[in-house]
Amino acid sequence: MRNAEATKERILEAAMEEFSSYGIAGARVDRIARNAGCNKNMIYVYFENKDTLFATVLRKNLTRVYEENTFTPEDLPGYAAKIFDFAMANPALFRLLAWYSLEQKAGSLAERAAAQEKKRKEIVDAQHAGMVGTAFTPGFLLTAIMTLATAWTAVNPYGPSYDPDGAKNPGETRDAIAKAVQLIADHGKSALK
Amino acid sequence: MRNAEATKERILEAAMEEFSSYGIAGARVDRIARNAGCNKNMIYVYFENKDTLFATVLRKNLTRVYEENTFTPEDLPGYAAKIFDFAMANPALFRLLAWYSLEQKAGSLAERAAAQEKKRKEIVDAQHAGMVGTAFTPGFLLTAIMTLATAWTAVNPYGPSYDPDGAKNPGETRDAIAKAVQLIADHGKSALK
Repeated sequence: MRNAEATKERILEAAMEEFSSYGIAGARVDRIARNAGCNKNMIYVYFENKDTLFATVLRKNLTRVYEENTFTPEDLPGYAAKIFDFAMANPALFRLLAWYSLEQKAGSLAERAAAQEKKRKEIVDAQHAGMVGTAFTPGFLLTAIMTLATAWTAVNPYGPSYDPDGAKNPGETRDAIAKAVQLIADHGKSALK
Repeated sequence: MRNAEATKERILEAAMEEFSSYGIAGARVDRIARNAGCNKNMIYVYFENKDTLFATVLRKNLTRVYEENTFTPEDLPGYAAKIFDFAMANPALFRLLAWYSLEQKAGSLAERAAAQEKKRKEIVDAQHAGMVGTAFTPGFLLTAIMTLATAWTAVNPYGPSYDPDGAKNPGETRDAIAKAVQLIADHGKSALK
């Protein structure tokens, strides 16, 4: 049993590398098997098919995002800064998310939808408590935070080309993202708390 | 000669459809030939290979972005609103750009780099003239504008899932994007003009 778990783990690591490089359609199960040092059939036994293997890898890595970046509705600029650091340190994960959005083969991710819904509700609460402005909807605020915080990853069509210095000066870019998020999140905030 | 131009045009249209759906690696030249109603060899005669055909299609469509959306450094919120409308009306182009960024096979786009450099310079001038705030660099401002304005296209990993109502209410989303860009672009603006 411990052996099976170790094999699964090796398959998931090799699959992360393969999917991040080639996407779902371009990934080759035999290359994953070779890199994981296992028989190709084991992949089908453990993970059914290529699409479900992709979904498993993406779910596993998205869980890391949630675990390593606690959502702080009372400090959205700080949250954006954390996501920026995480995104710059984990380019493969953001490539995975880009493939997922483009290929739309892996079905919906129930855990991700639930995590997003939870964040929207926490922003509603923070707005009621006067900690976040009410000029923008929670969905807009979260979209703005995530797109700004991930715009300098290598896979993004804008940050690396419009602002090539941004990735070279992560401290300044992180501060600018936090400041921009603060301006947006504070808008429509009552002066009284 | 007119016939050759018409064939090239049909190939470019079929290639846009094919690349937008499947990316560079996943695109099939024989499917493009079939949909363009021409011989597969003509594609190699006119466009060399699949990578150069992709680059030609992307360049052609990026030119449309520049032509149909005049850059207005004196009105960055208005520019962001225009790009939002354009992005929502042209999802295939933004899929193309996402494939380009992910697959990184088509080389650099000199015209795109030149257009981006020109915009950065125009923002510098607008900052000197006091029309744009100086709290953020031109590269940051342009990245923020482009990522916010395109965050609700179907291919984006954040807008459609974090803010599913955003695409259903384009008027509200457009206004919110323009407002967010205004807050960012006005920051650090002198009260005197």
